[in-house]
Amino acid sequence: MPTRILGIDPGLTRCGFGAIELGVGRNVALIDVGVFRSSPSAELSVRIGTLADEIESLIHSVKPDVLALERVFAQANLRSVMGTAQISGVVLALAHKHGLPIALHTPSEVKAAVTGNGRANKDQVGQMVTRILGLSEMPKPADAADALAIAICNAWRGLPSPSDKNSTLTAAQKSWHAAIAASKSKP
Amino acid sequence: MPTRILGIDPGLTRCGFGAIELGVGRNVALIDVGVFRSSPSAELSVRIGTLADEIESLIHSVKPDVLALERVFAQANLRSVMGTAQISGVVLALAHKHGLPIALHTPSEVKAAVTGNGRANKDQVGQMVTRILGLSEMPKPADAADALAIAICNAWRGLPSPSDKNSTLTAAQKSWHAAIAASKSKP
Repeated sequence: MPTRILGIDPGLTRCGFGAIELGVGRNVALIDVGVFRSSPSAELSVRIGTLADEIESLIHSVKPDVLALERVFAQANLRSVMGTAQISGVVLALAHKHGLPIALHTPSEVKAAVTGNGRANKDQVGQMVTRILGLSEMPKPADAADALAIAICNAWRGLPSPSDKNSTLTAAQKSWHAAIAASKSKP
Repeated sequence: MPTRILGIDPGLTRCGFGAIELGVGRNVALIDVGVFRSSPSAELSVRIGTLADEIESLIHSVKPDVLALERVFAQANLRSVMGTAQISGVVLALAHKHGLPIALHTPSEVKAAVTGNGRANKDQVGQMVTRILGLSEMPKPADAADALAIAICNAWRGLPSPSDKNSTLTAAQKSWHAAIAASKSKP
């Protein structure tokens, strides 16, 4: 039975979302992708409340089995981290409300999963997401592509590693496993 | 008509709440006070989701006219700021869902309102909250007293200043206005 994963790149001004379905092996197919926006000039509770309503509607329409979210970290811009944390709180509360398991992935884990490089830039992530899902063009803005990358990272976790027999991996997936293995072997 | 104010001191491990009613003049009466807790060992979505349910039940029982919340700022402990921001996001989304106006107050604004000193410590805030509401003992833990202070700060905003005729103020209220006036007169 296929697994449907909803990836969310939390943010107050732009909140990216990407839903995929994991089929046979490592096949992943696009279900939905986009971005919810809120105006910085609007009142904070209206911004957060409206985004909460939109994310809840998305859960109803996508009907995911899992919700994957980027783990919030300290960054240079503390103001944007606050908004990110506030939206991630809303997403976590919604996951609990709808009985959805939630997975948190670090940015470097997500980058490594789709590009094989934990320090890949936004454009590289977008290119690989486009290729993996067989899309005709790169999802825009970057928040939308990032949300798909989070979902793909989650989909591929726990699947047979490339050393397993009968494993059919793409070049990107092989380099991901190599990067994971290399990072694990470090002291 | 009395105004009912629900103050919330957002936090992931301890989330304080304090509900008061503003009557004639500057009279404020306690409606409810306490703290919701979540275990740091529990899964994050369970922690946030459970707190969200408890805060929503509180909104149903208190039926506030206004929700007052401490504005989240950068602090030394970034990890605790993240949890605080996540819960504040949940509270803001709930305020929007229930059509409640929300007011954000800075910590120094809250301290100045109840003690007359924007740099008062936790104990001084707790002592003044106890006195203002005529309680027999100080609300514990400090998060509960802080939530009441946030509600009182909100209640007293926009009320006649001590220079107005017929104004009957307590000593604490007079010193608060003096502190506000002093801070405004600084260059």
